[in-house]
Amino acid sequence: MALVVQKYGGSSVADAASIKRVAQRIVTTKKAGNEVVVVVSAMGDTTDELLDLAQQVSPLPPGRELDMLLTSGERISMALLAMAIANLGHEARSFTGSQAGVITDSKHGKARIIDVTPGRIKEAVDVGQIAIVAGFQGVSQDTKDITTLGRGGSDTTAVALAAALDADVCEIYTDVDGIFTADPRIVAAARRIPRISYEEMMEMAACGAKVLHLRCVEYARRFELPIHVRSSFSQREGTWVTSRRPEAGTGTGTGTNTNTSTSTSTSTSTSEGSEMEQPIISGVAHDRSEAKVTVVGVPDKVGEAAAIFKILAAAEINIDMIVQNVSAAATGRTDISFTLPATDGPTALTTLKRAQDQIGFESLLFDDQIGKVSLIGAGMRSHPGVTATFFAALADAGVNIEMISTSEIRISVIVGQDEVDAAVSAAHRAFDLDADQVEAVVYGGTGR
Amino acid sequence: MALVVQKYGGSSVADAASIKRVAQRIVTTKKAGNEVVVVVSAMGDTTDELLDLAQQVSPLPPGRELDMLLTSGERISMALLAMAIANLGHEARSFTGSQAGVITDSKHGKARIIDVTPGRIKEAVDVGQIAIVAGFQGVSQDTKDITTLGRGGSDTTAVALAAALDADVCEIYTDVDGIFTADPRIVAAARRIPRISYEEMMEMAACGAKVLHLRCVEYARRFELPIHVRSSFSQREGTWVTSRRPEAGTGTGTGTNTNTSTSTSTSTSTSEGSEMEQPIISGVAHDRSEAKVTVVGVPDKVGEAAAIFKILAAAEINIDMIVQNVSAAATGRTDISFTLPATDGPTALTTLKRAQDQIGFESLLFDDQIGKVSLIGAGMRSHPGVTATFFAALADAGVNIEMISTSEIRISVIVGQDEVDAAVSAAHRAFDLDADQVEAVVYGGTGR
Repeated sequence: MALVVQKYGGSSVADAASIKRVAQRIVTTKKAGNEVVVVVSAMGDTTDELLDLAQQVSPLPPGRELDMLLTSGERISMALLAMAIANLGHEARSFTGSQAGVITDSKHGKARIIDVTPGRIKEAVDVGQIAIVAGFQGVSQDTKDITTLGRGGSDTTAVALAAALDADVCEIYTDVDGIFTADPRIVAAARRIPRISYEEMMEMAACGAKVLHLRCVEYARRFELPIHVRSSFSQREGTWVTSRRPEAGTGTGTGTNTNTSTSTSTSTSTSEGSEMEQPIISGVAHDRSEAKVTVVGVPDKVGEAAAIFKILAAAEINIDMIVQNVSAAATGRTDISFTLPATDGPTALTTLKRAQDQIGFESLLFDDQIGKVSLIGAGMRSHPGVTATFFAALADAGVNIEMISTSEIRISVIVGQDEVDAAVSAAHRAFDLDADQVEAVVYGGTGR
Repeated sequence: MALVVQKYGGSSVADAASIKRVAQRIVTTKKAGNEVVVVVSAMGDTTDELLDLAQQVSPLPPGRELDMLLTSGERISMALLAMAIANLGHEARSFTGSQAGVITDSKHGKARIIDVTPGRIKEAVDVGQIAIVAGFQGVSQDTKDITTLGRGGSDTTAVALAAALDADVCEIYTDVDGIFTADPRIVAAARRIPRISYEEMMEMAACGAKVLHLRCVEYARRFELPIHVRSSFSQREGTWVTSRRPEAGTGTGTGTNTNTSTSTSTSTSTSEGSEMEQPIISGVAHDRSEAKVTVVGVPDKVGEAAAIFKILAAAEINIDMIVQNVSAAATGRTDISFTLPATDGPTALTTLKRAQDQIGFESLLFDDQIGKVSLIGAGMRSHPGVTATFFAALADAGVNIEMISTSEIRISVIVGQDEVDAAVSAAHRAFDLDADQVEAVVYGGTGR
């Protein structure tokens, strides 16, 4: 008997009809002989509605109370889901993050999981019940206050709970059939990736692929927990995120996890042969949410760059890419550019402006009309032609590169925001990722 | 420094504007030098909306999950109220029933409070914070599951918490200025009752006065906790419910509690002189929510009535009034009529029908077009003219009496539902309860 943790996002439980559809899917998994634990997000727009209410009573609500407010969202969806399952004749019990033993630190709105002690979940599962757990929330170890985990919180709850329960698989349900080689809204010929390694998935997530959050993949990697990303609107096999993907010429590592796949899925016969022929490039990710700051005329002395980023770190601003120009010998000054979440832009500018005398730079430039396009694939470094092919494809498409950053398994470039689509399409084509037929379906909110 | 527990119902926190108004009132109480603990219900129609959602996924939702669902309502209102108070520059902390130490039995939907261990509330108050507690909910001692207290639950939470904290007063805020001698919607000349004993208030509540729930008054009486019922829309003094009301000729017992009144209230000078002249009758209550069942042709043998009510008790049906006709000698059979909440009518009929052979009755009659009109006043038995005056007034108004029931401090009659208004008005006038000018204002949902 396999223990399956399933996670359903807000769009999968947006209304009563969706909740009943998800309940049916959960019951099918249970009837197939699995033990089932379900993590659920708040219904559709609930969180936004609650945030709107909060804004109406206070422009800057205290984090503790905001968390108390927002956690009512999952309370509603999980209770309704448990009722819908009960109505199908199966026993279900809903549990808050606190009841499920999700212990966090006290950073309201972005708490981190310290420990998971799922005693009550285990008890429920042991007596044959389906446990429904509120995603996105926990309880602070120190203050015993209710916390929320912030972005990607429900996925992280699911993976953390699956790890603590030693589950066989964590199924993340979404509105697409898995991870694709590019965003199907940009590249119609995008291909579903049947299997991807944690490392590549982390790069994809960090570079803008929105289906899985970076944090949840990091967690899964630490515990070597297989994730199966799939659609709650179809029965198709999705994308397996596992410790490594099969290398060319070997088929090992494939069997283990498909065994733990619940028997509810009708596998679309991902034969090992086809995986062996996979190109070395996993996919092309893009991100329009960043902005670029240029610090102009920084004195070219040791420690100047460190001073800038120390100040930004103190303001809790996460920096992504950094580029420093070659110093102009005549002036003894240089320019430093970096990217960051566009929403952090105003704070970064204010923070740097306050430190202008201390750092001694001349001026600041801000550009939020940028986009990041990333090519991700294992073993990229061992195939030196990859970078050349990537840049040539962008040049042929008339796309100008503003910044470049690389890792072992990724090349990212910053381009103009209106050139992102062209860059993604060009790269996807250049690396032969285009499918022969359209594979990607973005499902609507209606049941099927 | 007085410790004041305030309870605000759903209509007082129906929207963001109302929540801000209530926050202002709480802060005023705090600034006047009081320690403040607030119990709050779910916003306006939230509970009905959640029940509607539950119905959409399951016709008969499990009690545990229904409680989990419904308790999200107070979670929302209490968090918003804490934010609104914080926005006024005062520290507030919201607490669920579980966090506030409201320990109950495991009867979902109608749990009873077993114990209140308000350690976290005490800590918050001790450091100067305003504690906001979710009404209507607790946590089961045995299963650690979330429970709801059922009807009157938020008032009961407030009184129970006030008792456990040894508070000076429990203020119950509503949309009228206290308890009136009759429903102002029926009797425009109804008078506010400045002070009433627990016993009389319990009879009023049991007989349909909706401002305070019977259960909460019982709790307050057990702990001799003064309740002050007042409007959240005005600053007027309301009705004090205390251990005894001042007897004619003495003014004792009045000073004690007005001292504990928060200094936010502008007393409308309830002079002791006017209280001394109060009629012995406290008020006229009415209730349209009951129905009447008549069991026709019951064999007139010892134990037959007991058998009927034992069967109904087993079905958890609460019976109110019971009347047994004189047996008709010719048939050796009698009729037994009783009243019960109209919503329990179908269950009662089904239950009795199943036991027809066992009991041996001939048929069942059901009438939900009835109303109960009750006259309440201490010392009623010692004034024998009261019953006569009451019945004469009803007769003069052309009201037919179907059933009668009496206690030490109450006379109730069952009349046709369309005769309730006439009966209430006639009784109110007959006992000189009419005020010289209109005192009652039913406040709307808008702030003032």
